[in-house]
Parts: sequence; structure tokens; C-alpha cells
Amino acid sequence: VHPPTRLPIIMLTGRDARDDVVEALRRGANDYITKPLDMAVVIARLRTQLSLKSAVDQIVGLERDLERKNAELERANDDLRAAYRRMKSDLQAAARVQRSLLPSSPPPAPGLTFAWRYHPCQELAGDSLNVFTLDDEHIGCYLLDVTGHGVPAALLSVTITKLLMPVPDQPSLVRRREPSGRLAAVSPRVVAEELNARFQLDPETCRFFTLFYGLLNTRTREVRYVCAGQSGPVLARAGEVRNLNQPEIAIGVVPDPGYHERRLQLMPGDRLYVYSDGIDEARDARRTLFGEQRAMRVIRECRDQSLDASLDRLVHAAEQWAAAALDDDVSALALELLRD
Amino acid sequence: VHPPTRLPIIMLTGRDARDDVVEALRRGANDYITKPLDMAVVIARLRTQLSLKSAVDQIVGLERDLERKNAELERANDDLRAAYRRMKSDLQAAARVQRSLLPSSPPPAPGLTFAWRYHPCQELAGDSLNVFTLDDEHIGCYLLDVTGHGVPAALLSVTITKLLMPVPDQPSLVRRREPSGRLAAVSPRVVAEELNARFQLDPETCRFFTLFYGLLNTRTREVRYVCAGQSGPVLARAGEVRNLNQPEIAIGVVPDPGYHERRLQLMPGDRLYVYSDGIDEARDARRTLFGEQRAMRVIRECRDQSLDASLDRLVHAAEQWAAAALDDDVSALALELLRD
Repeated sequence: VHPPTRLPIIMLTGRDARDDVVEALRRGANDYITKPLDMAVVIARLRTQLSLKSAVDQIVGLERDLERKNAELERANDDLRAAYRRMKSDLQAAARVQRSLLPSSPPPAPGLTFAWRYHPCQELAGDSLNVFTLDDEHIGCYLLDVTGHGVPAALLSVTITKLLMPVPDQPSLVRRREPSGRLAAVSPRVVAEELNARFQLDPETCRFFTLFYGLLNTRTREVRYVCAGQSGPVLARAGEVRNLNQPEIAIGVVPDPGYHERRLQLMPGDRLYVYSDGIDEARDARRTLFGEQRAMRVIRECRDQSLDASLDRLVHAAEQWAAAALDDDVSALALELLRD
Repeated sequence: VHPPTRLPIIMLTGRDARDDVVEALRRGANDYITKPLDMAVVIARLRTQLSLKSAVDQIVGLERDLERKNAELERANDDLRAAYRRMKSDLQAAARVQRSLLPSSPPPAPGLTFAWRYHPCQELAGDSLNVFTLDDEHIGCYLLDVTGHGVPAALLSVTITKLLMPVPDQPSLVRRREPSGRLAAVSPRVVAEELNARFQLDPETCRFFTLFYGLLNTRTREVRYVCAGQSGPVLARAGEVRNLNQPEIAIGVVPDPGYHERRLQLMPGDRLYVYSDGIDEARDARRTLFGEQRAMRVIRECRDQSLDASLDRLVHAAEQWAAAALDDDVSALALELLRD
């Protein structure tokens, strides 16, 4: 059977050739014209068949183009997806490395609780935090935020995290060997200044970081800390919430920042919070900042909840405020001196 | 004009209605049948028009499906491409951070030349190397290779690179303050053991690294080095090329590796090479390794070329050997004591 859409066939027939006509049409002839020929009818029939044929050709051509384009797109898509998957799985493996550097459990300290949150906005974060035992009566803790986020920021934040990690039985940046041989906690000011010496801003990559570094004496309950380029800490005491912030320059920006070490005597029931600017710089649809005041209000409202629950509320409030998914890493660290 | 491929129209006409027929066909009628009706002809004509119509419908339907699929694919492609671009540019920014940690120029040392190559197989590398002045008479240099490659390996290699970087006027892992107040180079064995203490293999991420760490006394021309899990160093002396390798375990694998410090007195004309396994483990189409012997042969053949040119030849030979693009990072470090 001749396909009706390939070459159109018009039969010329005599008046009495009906059976032939029927058979020919059945076999795929497109049309017939009876003799004698009327040229007007012939031309009209030819025109009809030609327009039909060209419409069909056009559709078939279109279809072929689409099919080819489709195949190309699918190939491109496959390549892209493979490259994307490779990168994605690479980044996820890296995220596991980074996550493995977070504290697994708070250091044992009677009368004290610690809590933290860590939410990278991509696989890897420029934020980092830790809480660790330094010696018999000192716990160190910090929260840092490298400018930017993603892999470049993570390279720096992982480096600093590792550098700030106490090494078992060995001196390191956070713990020096005393003449007696004992390993003793290094003061926050010295830690900040050593970091500043090591991480002077590279003009090419232009990355620096903000840091809260605190040293808690578990016996006297005094906290000594340096807060470099970082807002806070925020103190919740007896129903009042205050930001103790006294601005100092971030780490790595100038060669001699002359950091000041602050001291805070904790009272029973006190809570101390630090969090990265992913929280107070969350913006709603009108680009209004979540801001320090709202963060402090949430902290005040949560005073009867557990420390852990209060961090959930704080992060949740910033997320709710934000118009879209948060576009910066969010991290928060808090400690509480329990009432006796 | 009625489009010929929508609803087919067949006219019934009298024998003498030719002008009407012509006009109707011109306006898009698909066919006509003259009275009196011959049912066989009517059925055949209907069948032809219906098969034509259904063929066209099928094509149009196909075309619509393809168009929809095409649009979907293009959207998916756009999304994927955007995600890919974000990751790619993130990785490229990170690669700039990593590259900024490479030595920019060799330390000034009369009678000595240094050369290095660094070719990550992806944006980021698990390999790293450096050459730096430690004190009046010591130059430190190292080459390290973290297991794997890409971002997870890079997180670790950047961390170690930063840790091994001398800090201006400050003690660090590679330079200790002596009782006199002077900053003095730390011995390679102590450097390797400190790294081993800090980078004990995390069972979750299972990453460790191989390291050559050398300390060159620019006055005595003696090199002290530790070669942990790393092949080499390869010494080219007076036309002979030898691998000085005495196997020791890589960094981070066991708690007390007890590394040995080796000593090598350089003679005028000596060249010393270390390179990552990206070179000797390059494989040809039959999976045969490029191997140590071929690498050493290239080094021997290049003895009359500059140190820098010999590294080009070495890397090029491994690349030529490899069936496809090298699938591991390639790095190499070499030094030469010039003839007087």
C-alpha cells in the first residue's frame, strides 16, 4: 500500500472505470480525475494535493529537527548530569570531612551545659565552631565565620578548625607546654593574635574571618573571651538579654589589631550565645534584616525552655523571617551555667 | 481557506457543477464525489481521507509530545547548568585559594636551584608542596599527597599546607623558639611525628597522607629528611639515578610510627627529586604502570637539561604514557646543588 503522505498520486480514469478507481484509492492513490480533463479541476486538485503534501512535509521536517534536538539535549543533559554528580558527590564527601570536625558531644563539666547548631547553606560552610576540654579547669569554645561560603570559605574554615583543635598530649595553638611540663590553656587574646599573624588577608583571595574565642574556667565560672569582628556574645541573665558586643576588627585584616580580652563572671542561670551573621542578616521579602533586636527577643522569650530548644527557636525564627532559603551559613553556640 | 489537515471535507456534486468544485477545492475541500453515488467509491474515498487524517494527527501529536519534552529537557538543562556553574565557579575560587598557597618563587640560596610542578586532576588537589626559608642556614621543603583527590582531599591538603607554613616572627610547627629567643628549624622527624599526632586517621573519612619533608642546610649542603609512605627521594648523581626510598608508613595511619630521619650529603651537580604517585602510577591502555624505572630513566636522560626542563619532561612522559587524561593529581619537587 502506497503511504498517503509520500508522493501524491492522482489517477486519470474513464467514466466507467469505477472498480479500478476503488482499488487504486484502496492501495493509496490520493485522488482521481475522470476524463475528459477539465483543466480548472486538474489544477485545483493538483494544488490541493501539493498543499497537503507540503503541509505534511513541513510537519515531518519539524518532527525530525525536534527529534535531533531532543537527542542532542539528552546527550548534553547526560554529560552535564554526570559532571554535576561527580562534583556533588565530591562536595558531599568533603562535607562529611567538615562535619567530622564538629564537636560530637559536649565536654563533661558539672553545672554547665553547651548547645550548638550548624547549618551550611551549601554542602560546605565558611562557619565553624567547637567546644573542647583544655586542662583540668578550662574549657575552650569558639565560633568563626569566614567571609563568603561554599568551598573557598570551607578551605579556610577547615584549616582554622584543625589548627584550633587540641592535640592529645601535645602543645598546639590553644595549649602551651609550661616549664613544669604541664599543658595549659592559651589565653584568648594570644589565640586571636596568633591566628591574626597566620591568616593575614591574601590580597588575591581577600578572605578573612570573624571569631569568638572563649575560655571558660570551670572552677571560678569566669569566661575570658575575644570577639573579633563578630557580634555578641549575647548574655541572658535574670530575664534580661544584652549584647555585650564591643566592636573589634576581624582576624587577618590588619597586622596589629591589638585585641582586648573581655571577662565575664557567670552567675547561676546565665546563658551566653554567639551566632554567625547568617542569623541576624536573614532578610525578608522587603530586604529587611532579621536583626539583633529580633534575635535577642527570641532568646528572651525562650528563657524557660532548654538551652538546646532555645537554639532551635532562634534558628527557626531566622529561617521563618527569611523570604527564601537562607543564603549564608548559620551557626550558633550557647552555654548555660545551671542554677544550683 | 480551510486547512487541508484538520477536518477532511468531501463534497458531493452534480456532474455539471465544475466551477463550484474548482472553487471548493481551492478553498480547502479535500475531495469531491459526483452524483449519483457509487458506494464503493464513497467508502474508498472516505477511507483514504481518514487514513490521511489519522497519519497527520499522529504526526501532529508526536510533534507536540516532542515539543513538550524538548521544553522540559531545556528547563532541566538550564537548572542543571546553573547548579553546575555555581559549583564550578565555587571550585574555581577554591582552586585560586589553594594555588595561592604554592611557593611564588624559590627562596634565595646561592648555589642551589629549586623547581616544582603542580597539576591537579580536578579543580582542587590532594597534593601540595612548598619550599621556604626557615632560618639563616635552613630551607624547608615538602611534597605531600592526601589519599584521593578533589574537594575532600583538598580540605586536608590545604589544612596541612597552612600548618607547615612558617609564620613571620612566630613559632609554628616547622619552627620553634629556642631559649635564646631565636626561631630555629624543627627537625623533619619531629615535624612528621607532630603531623602524625594531629592527623590520626578518622575512621569515618579514612584519609591519610604521604609526605616527604626535607630540611636543607645551606651551609653544609646536607639534607635531612623523612619520607613517610612516599616513594623517593630520587637522587641523580654523576650520571647515575637511584631511588633512596626506605619504606615508612604514611602519616596518620598508626599512633606511633617511629619515623627515621635520613641524611644525605649533597655533592656539586646532585639533583634530588620527589613526586606524587600521579606520575609513577599513570597507566597506559593495557593498565601497565608508568612506574619508577621509566621515571628514573627520564630523569637520567634529562641530566644535561635545566632542572626546570627535566620536570617538564618527567610530567610530559607520564602524560604521554597515560591512555587517557591523568586521573590523579601530579606534583613534583626538585632541587639541584650547582657545580661550582
